[in-house]
Amino acid sequence: MLKLFYSTGTCALASHIALQESGADYQIVRVDFRSEEQRKPDYLAINPKGRVPALVTDRGILTETPAILAFVAQSFPQARLAPLDDPFAFARAQAFNSYLCSTVHVAHAHRMRGYRWADDAAAIAAMQKKVPQSVGECYALIEREMLAGPWVMGESYTICDPYLFTLAQWMEGDSLDPARFPKVLDHRRRMAERPGVKKALADERG
Amino acid sequence: MLKLFYSTGTCALASHIALQESGADYQIVRVDFRSEEQRKPDYLAINPKGRVPALVTDRGILTETPAILAFVAQSFPQARLAPLDDPFAFARAQAFNSYLCSTVHVAHAHRMRGYRWADDAAAIAAMQKKVPQSVGECYALIEREMLAGPWVMGESYTICDPYLFTLAQWMEGDSLDPARFPKVLDHRRRMAERPGVKKALADERG
Repeated sequence: MLKLFYSTGTCALASHIALQESGADYQIVRVDFRSEEQRKPDYLAINPKGRVPALVTDRGILTETPAILAFVAQSFPQARLAPLDDPFAFARAQAFNSYLCSTVHVAHAHRMRGYRWADDAAAIAAMQKKVPQSVGECYALIEREMLAGPWVMGESYTICDPYLFTLAQWMEGDSLDPARFPKVLDHRRRMAERPGVKKALADERG
Repeated sequence: MLKLFYSTGTCALASHIALQESGADYQIVRVDFRSEEQRKPDYLAINPKGRVPALVTDRGILTETPAILAFVAQSFPQARLAPLDDPFAFARAQAFNSYLCSTVHVAHAHRMRGYRWADDAAAIAAMQKKVPQSVGECYALIEREMLAGPWVMGESYTICDPYLFTLAQWMEGDSLDPARFPKVLDHRRRMAERPGVKKALADERG
């Protein structure tokens, strides 16, 4: 059985939703970030990066949200979570997820994890100050260029959708007004109505 | 014909090498970063993010290195650049590339592109100061946990190899001594001997 290591309020939610919607047999295991469990030897043996998500499979352990999402889509093709037979369309979906991972999530991370990139307290404060602007520019680009609607890739729901939904949960925390991004906000509302999303959110809380 | 927009010394080299080794019919187009061509309307019409690489195909434009690399591997399967018939092995390769994109490249970018995440000059200087440590931690993890050898994924050469080679070119610029990472250094040397790598590097200079 697949086993997903997650922590509440993190990007692991994207993989969790995809697993839930894939029909996979899986369980979730909470990693307690408040007690810094992710930095302790037991968890570092699972993911030496000390991050979530990590997906334990019978072949070994996978990390990195874009890789896990594509793995879920390819492993459960009947769930139709990605355009698996069309390398160009698949690459478009992967490009969207790569942008979320390497640009949007990274911009957001400068609010709470500035210590990754500077030691100086004033520098960390300066990073926090810029988050509304840098994350806001990302969502402006997504709104203008990347979200085809009703789903990210257009008419077909894909692995891009739970990932965008997951990161878009953080807008208010990053001092962004979601009303500036009506398509993203509409997408977030539509996602929140999906049974698989409700179930994943409830299971993470429970 | 595929057309790759690149700039010298950037991560676009990874896609360039993959194209060269795939047997694809392609051409390269240089974007002049010194004159900030990547921020001008002509280029923003190709890639609104103002970055390289961008790959123009007859179906549309692709961005983001991990997505382009997987696209090249899937589009030219006879080149055997990824384990295309094994979702788990493919996900392992993708996880490696996602780590390069979202963690290693991002850590490196704090040396030259700190303005993305802070406006304050002292903060930008504090970011630069930490680059040897943060990038060094990434390579220590790659050396210890991720580079199976002789290639990243083991016996088979994959799309992980040109990407690691490309980023590992930046070590000295980030004030890292490559001798600290003998497996990465050995990989870099072995990559530099491949005809496709030599051709890509020469074409970018030429």
